[in-house]
Amino acid sequence: MSSLPTPGAARAPFRTVALIGRYATAGIEGPLEELAACILKNGQDVVFERETALATGLTDYPALAPEDIGKHADVAVVLGGDGTLLGLARQLAGFPVPLIGVNHGRLGFMTDIPLEDVHSVLPDMLAGRYESEVRMLLESQVVRDDEVIFSALAFNDVVVNRSGISGMVELAVSVDGYFMYNQRSDGLIVSTPTGSTAYALSAGGPILHPTLSGLVLVPIAPHALSNRPIVLPHDAEVSIEVATARDASVNFDMQSLTSLLPGDRIVVRRSAKTVNLLHPIGYNYYATLRKKLHWHEYPSEDNRL
Amino acid sequence: MSSLPTPGAARAPFRTVALIGRYATAGIEGPLEELAACILKNGQDVVFERETALATGLTDYPALAPEDIGKHADVAVVLGGDGTLLGLARQLAGFPVPLIGVNHGRLGFMTDIPLEDVHSVLPDMLAGRYESEVRMLLESQVVRDDEVIFSALAFNDVVVNRSGISGMVELAVSVDGYFMYNQRSDGLIVSTPTGSTAYALSAGGPILHPTLSGLVLVPIAPHALSNRPIVLPHDAEVSIEVATARDASVNFDMQSLTSLLPGDRIVVRRSAKTVNLLHPIGYNYYATLRKKLHWHEYPSEDNRL
Amino acid sequence: MSSLPTPGAARAPFRTVALIGRYATAGIEGPLEELAACILKNGQDVVFERETALATGLTDYPALAPEDIGKHADVAVVLGGDGTLLGLARQLAGFPVPLIGVNHGRLGFMTDIPLEDVHSVLPDMLAGRYESEVRMLLESQVVRDDEVIFSALAFNDVVVNRSGISGMVELAVSVDGYFMYNQRSDGLIVSTPTGSTAYALSAGGPILHPTLSGLVLVPIAPHALSNRPIVLPHDAEVSIEVATARDASVNFDMQSLTSLLPGDRIVVRRSAKTVNLLHPIGYNYYATLRKKLHWHEYPSEDNRL
Amino acid sequence: MSSLPTPGAARAPFRTVALIGRYATAGIEGPLEELAACILKNGQDVVFERETALATGLTDYPALAPEDIGKHADVAVVLGGDGTLLGLARQLAGFPVPLIGVNHGRLGFMTDIPLEDVHSVLPDMLAGRYESEVRMLLESQVVRDDEVIFSALAFNDVVVNRSGISGMVELAVSVDGYFMYNQRSDGLIVSTPTGSTAYALSAGGPILHPTLSGLVLVPIAPHALSNRPIVLPHDAEVSIEVATARDASVNFDMQSLTSLLPGDRIVVRRSAKTVNLLHPIGYNYYATLRKKLHWHEYPSEDNRL
Repeated sequence: MSSLPTPGAARAPFRTVALIGRYATAGIEGPLEELAACILKNGQDVVFERETALATGLTDYPALAPEDIGKHADVAVVLGGDGTLLGLARQLAGFPVPLIGVNHGRLGFMTDIPLEDVHSVLPDMLAGRYESEVRMLLESQVVRDDEVIFSALAFNDVVVNRSGISGMVELAVSVDGYFMYNQRSDGLIVSTPTGSTAYALSAGGPILHPTLSGLVLVPIAPHALSNRPIVLPHDAEVSIEVATARDASVNFDMQSLTSLLPGDRIVVRRSAKTVNLLHPIGYNYYATLRKKLHWHEYPSEDNRL
Repeated sequence: MSSLPTPGAARAPFRTVALIGRYATAGIEGPLEELAACILKNGQDVVFERETALATGLTDYPALAPEDIGKHADVAVVLGGDGTLLGLARQLAGFPVPLIGVNHGRLGFMTDIPLEDVHSVLPDMLAGRYESEVRMLLESQVVRDDEVIFSALAFNDVVVNRSGISGMVELAVSVDGYFMYNQRSDGLIVSTPTGSTAYALSAGGPILHPTLSGLVLVPIAPHALSNRPIVLPHDAEVSIEVATARDASVNFDMQSLTSLLPGDRIVVRRSAKTVNLLHPIGYNYYATLRKKLHWHEYPSEDNRL
Repeated sequence: MSSLPTPGAARAPFRTVALIGRYATAGIEGPLEELAACILKNGQDVVFERETALATGLTDYPALAPEDIGKHADVAVVLGGDGTLLGLARQLAGFPVPLIGVNHGRLGFMTDIPLEDVHSVLPDMLAGRYESEVRMLLESQVVRDDEVIFSALAFNDVVVNRSGISGMVELAVSVDGYFMYNQRSDGLIVSTPTGSTAYALSAGGPILHPTLSGLVLVPIAPHALSNRPIVLPHDAEVSIEVATARDASVNFDMQSLTSLLPGDRIVVRRSAKTVNLLHPIGYNYYATLRKKLHWHEYPSEDNRL
Repeated sequence: MSSLPTPGAARAPFRTVALIGRYATAGIEGPLEELAACILKNGQDVVFERETALATGLTDYPALAPEDIGKHADVAVVLGGDGTLLGLARQLAGFPVPLIGVNHGRLGFMTDIPLEDVHSVLPDMLAGRYESEVRMLLESQVVRDDEVIFSALAFNDVVVNRSGISGMVELAVSVDGYFMYNQRSDGLIVSTPTGSTAYALSAGGPILHPTLSGLVLVPIAPHALSNRPIVLPHDAEVSIEVATARDASVNFDMQSLTSLLPGDRIVVRRSAKTVNLLHPIGYNYYATLRKKLHWHEYPSEDNRL
């Protein structure tokens, strides 16, 4: 019946916990230290992500590069916003290290544990009582004259778009070798379910439940009003050829490749790598959506009825 | 790689072909007779759907009720529009009889074979050379005071909506037992991928590729601007409780149940029954979409660039 | 330069103040009494709207029917939500009685003065220091067989729509005698600037600044994706003919006429009558919009940049 | 009643007709020569726009720069698409020279006379029988450190937007000195009624009737889902301050200014200059809209009802 993470029986506790913070934020040291203390008290080992340690001066703990976290840690706890988690997730993709997101500031879609709940929630999770969720990534190549000139992973989305000064791009889009359309627009977003609540939502795309196997194409300000978002099966291969453009570029999450040329093709498909997110038992995705999007929780006293 | 129907090796030819027409349309007899002749010439047996035979006076062939078509025919050819096919598909759901859609008038999303192509295309398909596609159905119950007072199948969508004179309905929506939101709107559409190009599209929903495993909730004129369409996994169970309403009703495809009461719950989930559509070898879903939605086929001479 | 109400020099103070409350709301008596006391203390006479007085038992003041308020009061203060003000505004249209909206509960678009600010704000306004704004109304006739069978005023909108069980309505729309289109949809909204933040906004319409001279047609879930909202000049005459429908109805604000027949025409144009709203000096329409629509007030710390 | 151009009594005939073509298009010479011959035969003088004459080699007629056309011609006939007319209109703004648009290729919103209708339609118009329509222009300044560093006219729109590689711009928007919001988005379009069927429509804006006195703000992929298009009165002054951006730019119709800095303000208001378009008697704006947007002309045979 349910496609939500099922409350599993307790699993083995984690031993080594990596800690990563949005280190560019002033005042993050206190909360990070508090988090480290909470984990230590709980009997786990703490290692810090290297840049986090350097930026905050929290040097009492071993500091590791993301790759070494991937090899040596059992779980990673991210303190910050969704952007921080997103960056780390891409670096850890392929390593069997699940992620726990703690928000510092405001609730995130993935950093869904408030800092103030850490003491009541984290020990249980680190002891093996959690709900586990697997998220897909996109892998993408830029092909020029039959050669791959760039490739990247994306957790949120791959975006092909016009520059700030050209009127539009024209893109010839195919799926699984079938020609779909020539699209004139500001650009085209290929988004994962995770990215569907980010840029794709602003551009008019639907929300995709994280456990859905699929990706969504969302045109940005398309010339043809009937160029609507289309949700494709998880195994679809999308090919976007730049038909006409001045200074078009492609962004993988936020990493950019500029100066695309007519004839360049951006190929996007599901990556074999995944990201594993952990949530407290009882986690409700819809509650997060409802809070983030200001949906109504209570019946209305509205007088429109 | 591909999620489209793969061009299979030739399968066993069909023997008994049922023929169904949009009999309410004047002048359908000629095209139907032509279709029957084409099938006969091809060596197959032809049976007519009973109402079609009665309405058109084409009584030279055996006439069967839909249920008997389900039991005795090997394949059904529908001549008409998507509405005709939709109606028959619901009646044949559960029987192992695949459907072939021939359009009379204009191209349909499912009735994708033009009548004039029948002679070049149908013999091959009836001989076992086709692409096969399975489409999901929704099953839905209306629950009042813990009793199921109505149940129905839907191929396109289940729609809970206000009456023509009330300002809005208020619906409490849950998925898999998790509360999602209280929605004030004109109504809520639960649509299959098949229905995503029908009413749901008009209400702002995304297109769902037919092979996608999923369904989509599309609010109609929601009070909260952030109440956006949300695509759910195929095994999601959606529960819509009528919180407040005057004369709200629920439509299953086009079959209606009126006078819903506050507290009534409409439960929607994927049916175990499916519909099997056949297409000519080389079928391209995107070509149909492109034609139906007037998407651009050729590069532009637009001067906006 | 500005089209906002300009801060005028002080005008003559008001003498007789009518008081109207959303009397169906429990606990409205206290706030109403407080409001009356505030006005009295300020040296003005207070009269109550009759239904308000009856419903609340506040019978120490003269009670008048809306029509008599129109004749005898100099200004009307409405306590409630936009719906309460809307109802009264329609009744007072044509009388030279301006309206002041005080919200009870949450901020309204027109009931923009919080109850707690009444003591600091109302005396000044009643003494003649306010900003004045004139809002347009729609007048509408339903024409059957060349006869007007119904007519009504609307402050928000005139809505022609399908019933809860029919699939759509088909409407032939003309403006100023020029045929525009045949529209198949759930319905069509003709909205004033005032109504543009109500139902029309939910259906995808733009916001129209209240001082704009114009009205907007907003299709509800139109079959043709290019049937977009269109803003017309203030003197446009819109004619909507019901081409096909089962049980279509037309709503004027919230007042309904059901059972429209094919061939019925709904004619909508600007009324010669207007509604005059008063606001405190310094009133900022955009501040109200921003609060109601949760627009960002402060620069972001968002990490998407 | 009507806000459409009223069929006036015949006015004085035009004497000197300027001719401008989309000279970058191959094969435009023939149609241009035909057009010139048609005008000559009709007894008017023909002058060519200089670039048009040079590019096409049509040198039998006097050739003038746009400014001299503004001074010496009585009317200008444009052969091409809306883009050609748009460019000339901006150059002639301020001169009392009305424009007639003849489309070469496909129907335009402003180039609404098909080339094949020229012989039946143009003589009458040049003889003084036409419908006249006045369109507004925007004037815009870019202000940096209290100095105007750039200014331009726009007939369609002024667009402030992100570059191709930055995630978003953040804009602080005020109208008439009233702060409206901080908007995070791909950009913001300020559009005239003329521009409302161009880029603004793709970005989700409403259509504004050309005779409407107003302009519309349309956010492009706004972060806040409630940042909806807003239509402002004609005399509104819009100020857009770049709060945060990397390489943001501003486009006036298609003319760009790049490298905006945080703190730069783009001020947009209605220009005192206007553009005067002429149409054949009986011109119907809605017929053009209907054709361009593929709206339904005839009642449906759709089976959804």
